[in-house]
Amino acid sequence: MSNQKLFNVAVVGATGAVGEQIIRLLAERNFPIQELKLLSSARSAGSKVSFKGQEITVQEATPDSFQGVDIALFSAGGDVSKALIPEAIKHGTVCVDNTSAFRMDPETPLVVPEVNIDKVNEHKGVIANPNCSTIQMVQTLKPLYDRYGISRIIVSTYQAVSGAGARAIDEMLRQSREVLAGNEVEPQILPVGSLPKKHQIAFNAIPQIDKFVENGFTYEEMKMINETKKIMGDESLEVTATCVRVPVVYGHSESVYVELKSDFDIEEVKQLLADAPGIILQDNPAEQVYPLATDAAGKLETFVGRVRRDLSNPRALNLWIVSDNLLKGAAWNAVQIAEYIAIEQN
Amino acid sequence: MSNQKLFNVAVVGATGAVGEQIIRLLAERNFPIQELKLLSSARSAGSKVSFKGQEITVQEATPDSFQGVDIALFSAGGDVSKALIPEAIKHGTVCVDNTSAFRMDPETPLVVPEVNIDKVNEHKGVIANPNCSTIQMVQTLKPLYDRYGISRIIVSTYQAVSGAGARAIDEMLRQSREVLAGNEVEPQILPVGSLPKKHQIAFNAIPQIDKFVENGFTYEEMKMINETKKIMGDESLEVTATCVRVPVVYGHSESVYVELKSDFDIEEVKQLLADAPGIILQDNPAEQVYPLATDAAGKLETFVGRVRRDLSNPRALNLWIVSDNLLKGAAWNAVQIAEYIAIEQN
Repeated sequence: MSNQKLFNVAVVGATGAVGEQIIRLLAERNFPIQELKLLSSARSAGSKVSFKGQEITVQEATPDSFQGVDIALFSAGGDVSKALIPEAIKHGTVCVDNTSAFRMDPETPLVVPEVNIDKVNEHKGVIANPNCSTIQMVQTLKPLYDRYGISRIIVSTYQAVSGAGARAIDEMLRQSREVLAGNEVEPQILPVGSLPKKHQIAFNAIPQIDKFVENGFTYEEMKMINETKKIMGDESLEVTATCVRVPVVYGHSESVYVELKSDFDIEEVKQLLADAPGIILQDNPAEQVYPLATDAAGKLETFVGRVRRDLSNPRALNLWIVSDNLLKGAAWNAVQIAEYIAIEQN
Repeated sequence: MSNQKLFNVAVVGATGAVGEQIIRLLAERNFPIQELKLLSSARSAGSKVSFKGQEITVQEATPDSFQGVDIALFSAGGDVSKALIPEAIKHGTVCVDNTSAFRMDPETPLVVPEVNIDKVNEHKGVIANPNCSTIQMVQTLKPLYDRYGISRIIVSTYQAVSGAGARAIDEMLRQSREVLAGNEVEPQILPVGSLPKKHQIAFNAIPQIDKFVENGFTYEEMKMINETKKIMGDESLEVTATCVRVPVVYGHSESVYVELKSDFDIEEVKQLLADAPGIILQDNPAEQVYPLATDAAGKLETFVGRVRRDLSNPRALNLWIVSDNLLKGAAWNAVQIAEYIAIEQN
């Protein structure tokens, strides 16, 4: 991008786990930035963040913060997005929102670049970034959807604590130390910070991410179900999800059963996955090669393995999908969308 | 059981993780024992184990060890069972085998007492104890199978390291300490002790338990598939499994999707589960009550929660099933079978 247009960019939630990764990626990717504005809550305002050798002071995000801002990336929670994105839009800012605030709004595109980047062009000021656990699954299933059609998806997740923020990471590591020392643990954050009851995450598996809906599913599970249909643009897709928090720091893993609409050749499936953008096929059982959260951590790609034809349903196959939930699951997907916006305006 | 017959009982693999629990349960349950013989490999022979206040010296298991033994409980690995159970049978010993050696042998009953205890009476000297991950699932699904019929089961597991033995527990705890101290880890045991490649289990999720079969599934997954059909006595059952090791010490968790053959009322399902023997329903989303591995550890029961009707398939429901893999998943199921044998002979 030479002689390219430069953009005034804002990162809202600049001191959070996702915000930090967005800032790092904007630098690494040499995003065409004129001025970078870092915004946060009043509590975190005043702290300094380094960006390409320069120190930027974090400012409190207010409705007036978006004057002159071309592109803003939001990851400061749904309430902040709901309050400030309408204000930013008034200033002509194009917003990429990492929260769930606008995801199911029919006017708002919900975008995984490898799946439906063209939807960005339909935006009315805000493009929503899907939930972390949805992104890696939809990205992986897209080439199979296009080639064979998909009728049903049944997914069980193994989600990292970083998905619940930096404080959840600290809690999991602290609890692990306590258990190893033979002490009692006092859970304070997980499974859901705003709910009264807490459970130990160290050396445990908690089948609750986000609050419960009336139907017995959690919001996290409903996000996977509803967002998958919206991103694929197919309301007939049947999706079931069980979302579970495990004591992993970075990297969501997913066990996915998928029923296709037509017959398939398993080697062709593997080739489609290997050729798909942003996906790395790691699938060699004889050599014990399959995706692992510890390997995916820090990487931008989504990893898939354990690709095998179902034994009872010849139209079904099983997959193990792993990706860094803070990167492709959040920051990287958002920066990809911002890069597309920048290229379109050049 | 007053004036009851007393039995000469042998525990083979007395110093292993499961053997220890069997000995503890035989004491706690006041099993009608005349003499308890503790057997192990030559390496562990000579060590002393306390049983009801008396010290018993562990002896090397040999073909002659079973002279005069009425009931033997085996958990010393498949090779030991294959070598010694035929010898024990020659001495008239009834064997309860915790390994996979005889499970799929058509002559050998594969028993979960709550499901098919009557099969014990068909034994020809050996009764097989199913795989840990199978037992808790089949036990939970049995009342639903009886009431509605089951056509399909899709399960993803979250299995504790204790399923791979005491050395795997040590490895996971040691690795956790290393990671917390910021050091590199050098995996030595998991995922499969006898295979060359090792993976970190601390703060990770490994989608491999046991070796791989040609079809891309692991033996652990094939055990869940084949044993479930055999225990239910229904070869038409369609079962898919993905088995994953997680950094939990005790307690396997399972995310289970099950398609029933007839319509159901979800409250009736919950009642059936609550009333089933050995099962505790822990299901109150509003109060964040659901089974957790850390709660199930040390308990004899199987815990079920997250019971909810599927949103896309009205004949399907989803469950979260947790049990202590060394107890109901191994030692307790074996002792239950031994108790049945003892009662039948009284």
